[in-house]
Amino acid sequence: MESSKIRIAICGYGNLGKGVEKAIAQNPDMELVGIFSRRPKEALNTTSKVLSMENIEQYKNDIDVVVMCGGSANDLEEQVPMFAKYFNTVDSFDTHAKIPEYYEKVDKVACEAGRISIISVGWDPGLFSILRLFGEACLPEGNTYTFWGKGVSQGHSNAIRRIPGVKNAVQYTVPMEDAVAKVRKGENPELTTRQKHIRECYVVAEEGADQEEIRQAIVNMPNYFADNITVVYFISEEELKQKHSGMPHGGFVIRSGKTGENTKQLMEFSLNLESNPEFTSSVLLAYARAAYKLNIDGWYEGATTVWDVPPIYLSPKNTEELLKHLL
Amino acid sequence: MESSKIRIAICGYGNLGKGVEKAIAQNPDMELVGIFSRRPKEALNTTSKVLSMENIEQYKNDIDVVVMCGGSANDLEEQVPMFAKYFNTVDSFDTHAKIPEYYEKVDKVACEAGRISIISVGWDPGLFSILRLFGEACLPEGNTYTFWGKGVSQGHSNAIRRIPGVKNAVQYTVPMEDAVAKVRKGENPELTTRQKHIRECYVVAEEGADQEEIRQAIVNMPNYFADNITVVYFISEEELKQKHSGMPHGGFVIRSGKTGENTKQLMEFSLNLESNPEFTSSVLLAYARAAYKLNIDGWYEGATTVWDVPPIYLSPKNTEELLKHLL
Repeated sequence: MESSKIRIAICGYGNLGKGVEKAIAQNPDMELVGIFSRRPKEALNTTSKVLSMENIEQYKNDIDVVVMCGGSANDLEEQVPMFAKYFNTVDSFDTHAKIPEYYEKVDKVACEAGRISIISVGWDPGLFSILRLFGEACLPEGNTYTFWGKGVSQGHSNAIRRIPGVKNAVQYTVPMEDAVAKVRKGENPELTTRQKHIRECYVVAEEGADQEEIRQAIVNMPNYFADNITVVYFISEEELKQKHSGMPHGGFVIRSGKTGENTKQLMEFSLNLESNPEFTSSVLLAYARAAYKLNIDGWYEGATTVWDVPPIYLSPKNTEELLKHLL
Repeated sequence: MESSKIRIAICGYGNLGKGVEKAIAQNPDMELVGIFSRRPKEALNTTSKVLSMENIEQYKNDIDVVVMCGGSANDLEEQVPMFAKYFNTVDSFDTHAKIPEYYEKVDKVACEAGRISIISVGWDPGLFSILRLFGEACLPEGNTYTFWGKGVSQGHSNAIRRIPGVKNAVQYTVPMEDAVAKVRKGENPELTTRQKHIRECYVVAEEGADQEEIRQAIVNMPNYFADNITVVYFISEEELKQKHSGMPHGGFVIRSGKTGENTKQLMEFSLNLESNPEFTSSVLLAYARAAYKLNIDGWYEGATTVWDVPPIYLSPKNTEELLKHLL
């Protein structure tokens, strides 16, 4: 295959993979080679080419970057080291506690292959991680606050769905307005988990189930809900589908710092997303471009984080064009 | 001089230079070697060492980075090429139209010297430039909006002060709330200059001056005020000193984009600064660290923009430390 475009492949065809497939059309310097999937083409409902997960090395010279769209829980830890042997990769690995170990594992494989693997890309971890670093570096004395929401937490929604008597459920993480207001005023409050986010749960109960029992099971669930103020609403399956089937999300990183003699300075980065997976997909593609360009320029081999990537590598434009209209 | 700290010098001792002097105390990995000034030490009112602008090459081995704190209008174009011959530099050059030409000029000198000069650092140009690039790269289809304020514009304040009958004046640039609200809603409005910012002017008139005449001279002044809605308040010198002697500023960069089938996605970066020069100083120091580390690592020589700097170079921490608590 000859091309002057960046040749992208997708691995995994869930919400994220579908988002990447759509986003490639918005990036004229890229083209989609195909989608790696364990499922047969018929099961995928796509017009894109479906590539076999067997013998991935056969595509070694046809693909510049593989965008890894599997889940952190099961897929990425296994698949990324497998693909990093032959391809530059980007992924959205987000199991925070395991990131250092994951970094080491991917680094080893990608270094040996002379490829670059940008890990934990997206918005958090990802853009929020960069903004937290900017905050600390530009205002060394201060506090950093991250709030998430309003948005759907898949993990919390699933936890509710496992409760006996629950047919379906969606959980929103909602930042507490008064906490956010205090932070924005530069008051530098110390905030407990309870004071930062409310958990709003929309639950469809099975017929005849005891709603109060379900409510108690939710609000007292350790790790997931016990440390927060949790509000439970029982609604019909129909209402859930109508009003709560989107995947909005967002949040903000605020750095509240001081300079000189107690001068208050505030930096804030916020996202307001109608679709969490589509935005993450779009960010993944910007970093796919960076992986390709960095690898060609010989800057990096091995595992790389969003902090290692010079912003200009994310852009299809060069310095001259950017200096004219963006600086 | 032996040291494991980054050895910083300041060139120019106005608001920015004073800000850098204070900010060094907040960065334990840095130390101040001294301040380059054309003025004698007695005129400077500082306990720091004052260095002569004659024979700057004598300090070649004693200074890692010179933070250039002169003004864009007169100082930087001359001084940065002079210092880039011997030192890594960072500056806040912000005459937008001249940036490409300035970049070329500095690049030549710094390349020959094997040094790095990071130009146009601060918040705009600077952090805002990075966020504009992030916006375009992560949401290729969309519009970018930059609003400034509420904050003091030195250039506009000076323009008012030159009007006959004006004793003193302070001008605030204020974003129009309804324009910002439309952008935040994802409406992607086309906004004229007039629809983006109001100009608020606080003016002290000479005794006996015709206030209406002054008001007309301000609101009709081409380039500065004629294209905006401008509000003029006449106040006493005392009130001006009491209420308008700070240098607050801020603003926001908003990227309003679409993914997939018309899904609205919004990214916003905002600053709320009690002191514009102190914040800029603090950002300059973070980039001074980056200039030092990049030059040691041999990544760059010559003129460099904020887009070229991997975020991790701004931090005193290494990847391992950052992975644990910031990703």
